[in-house]
Amino acid sequence: MKKFINHPDAVVRESLVGLAAAHPDLRVDLEQQIVVRADAPRAGKVGLISGGGSGHEPLHAGFVGLGMLDAACPGEVFTSPVPDQILAAAKAIDAGSGVVHIVKNYTGDVMNFQLAAELSADEGIEVHSVLVDDDVAVEDSTWTAGRRGTGATMLVEKIAGALAEEGGDAASVAALGTRVNEASASFAIALTPCTTPAAGRPGFELGEDEMEVGVGIHGEPGRRREKLLPARDIATMTLEAILAAKPVAAGEDAIVLMNGLGATPLIELYLLYGEFAGLLESAGVRIARNLVGNYVTSLDMAGMSLTVCRADPELLRLWDAPVRTPALRWGV
Amino acid sequence: MKKFINHPDAVVRESLVGLAAAHPDLRVDLEQQIVVRADAPRAGKVGLISGGGSGHEPLHAGFVGLGMLDAACPGEVFTSPVPDQILAAAKAIDAGSGVVHIVKNYTGDVMNFQLAAELSADEGIEVHSVLVDDDVAVEDSTWTAGRRGTGATMLVEKIAGALAEEGGDAASVAALGTRVNEASASFAIALTPCTTPAAGRPGFELGEDEMEVGVGIHGEPGRRREKLLPARDIATMTLEAILAAKPVAAGEDAIVLMNGLGATPLIELYLLYGEFAGLLESAGVRIARNLVGNYVTSLDMAGMSLTVCRADPELLRLWDAPVRTPALRWGV
Repeated sequence: MKKFINHPDAVVRESLVGLAAAHPDLRVDLEQQIVVRADAPRAGKVGLISGGGSGHEPLHAGFVGLGMLDAACPGEVFTSPVPDQILAAAKAIDAGSGVVHIVKNYTGDVMNFQLAAELSADEGIEVHSVLVDDDVAVEDSTWTAGRRGTGATMLVEKIAGALAEEGGDAASVAALGTRVNEASASFAIALTPCTTPAAGRPGFELGEDEMEVGVGIHGEPGRRREKLLPARDIATMTLEAILAAKPVAAGEDAIVLMNGLGATPLIELYLLYGEFAGLLESAGVRIARNLVGNYVTSLDMAGMSLTVCRADPELLRLWDAPVRTPALRWGV
Repeated sequence: MKKFINHPDAVVRESLVGLAAAHPDLRVDLEQQIVVRADAPRAGKVGLISGGGSGHEPLHAGFVGLGMLDAACPGEVFTSPVPDQILAAAKAIDAGSGVVHIVKNYTGDVMNFQLAAELSADEGIEVHSVLVDDDVAVEDSTWTAGRRGTGATMLVEKIAGALAEEGGDAASVAALGTRVNEASASFAIALTPCTTPAAGRPGFELGEDEMEVGVGIHGEPGRRREKLLPARDIATMTLEAILAAKPVAAGEDAIVLMNGLGATPLIELYLLYGEFAGLLESAGVRIARNLVGNYVTSLDMAGMSLTVCRADPELLRLWDAPVRTPALRWGV
């Protein structure tokens, strides 16, 4: 294993030390292992909290800031945050208007956020939840009952975050987040496995001419393993899987996230985006907004995921609203 | 070789197709292989042009837009753009105020930008040039006489671009770019080689416990190969090499670019940034601004570079000025 680390056990903590040094408009509590907007709590504003295992950066801590999350709870690598950590985040940001949990659908995350919601309620904090399960690759997986939560999480955080920023109440923000999730579908393909610092070796083996189709963001298996194909065929296969779930139909607008899984360079992501843009145009879908980059990752995995979200004028307006976070910024 | 491509010969062109589809505020001329701000030429504005081999994305095309470059000329992978291509960019953006070439110090780039400057002069376009040679690792290299140009290129593009945007004349913009280069020093370390699409196999071999110290952005050799060290020791070694070139002294401000070489994930870059921030503080240097991410890359190479640039109030003001490009955006 070759990584820029000191010790496998210290990776998450030491990375948070760097995050704190780089971004003075975030408050990083190393004790509680939470990342909070420096200006939280903000009177009259619903607080958005997300979290999950580390290893998916910039998700989630890189999306804390104006117009997106109020707090992130990074667990250890590929390990759910604990309930006390999520409770600490809620206490740090709640200004009396309640909080919304944005939870990727993994068994540990769901359980720990649920426990944290109960603990928060005991403290008088109203909690609503959005469950994200956009990955159409498999129905159940190593760590999930039902579909996995992947790329759409970022869209939920951006769009629900914008509504919270402009004063939406907790129930409305959560309902909107759920609507974004329901309008989204994602599918991922990996060219290489990833290596967790603790394990020190790849989570699975892939031959020099193989790819993993429908892979998850923890290196968990996908639908099947097959021979590597040209980008054009990979794009066709990916989009067929996504459109089969009908997130969007001909004549509709979409927000598209062309996402890298960590080690895939931009030159390849743009090449893929060109393929997807052509295919979506042929399918009669208009890409109203797009993002191309490494946003929801799986450590050092080479691979990509596509997320397609049906858009309407409200979603586009909230997408365009100002955002100022380490990894996503515009309008301010 | 596992990449998301269709054919090695088509990678650059097809990636530009995707760039064009993703960014309607850029004009991508596939015939001339240039990327231009859609609103160019702009009356009264000096035009900034950069370019070089592809494989360093988002450099340069990802930095075309308001407040940064007016045009980028992507060559084939790790291959200089040709003079006609650079001339075409100049003609597309010149509004009579002249253009400034920002050139990384590689023999082919220097020669072709020089030829393009002569061709442009023949067409009545005034050309000034900034040569970037910030990499303190080696004096000469495979493709360079003198130091190589790497991470500081992005700082030159941002800061000179801001001055051009607010109406600086060509000579002033070029002089500022040169000043930024002279105030900067960079040093890189690779954990893996990179693979060009054409070659199909890594440019060099590194053992499972080795790193290349002082590596260039084309996989060209560095100072030496040695056993992999903890991040803390890598940071110390890197900063010693940089500070030996005296870009900044105790009591001064700096802009720091913590850059990934393509396949190194953010969790590691932030961990490294934390190490560098601590070391710079101990050296009495104040980090006034920072960027952490994959900005000046070398295809799928795992590795990192640090760039340190001495900052003064003028440089910081121009750094903070609005920028709106695919890969860097704030204030707008």
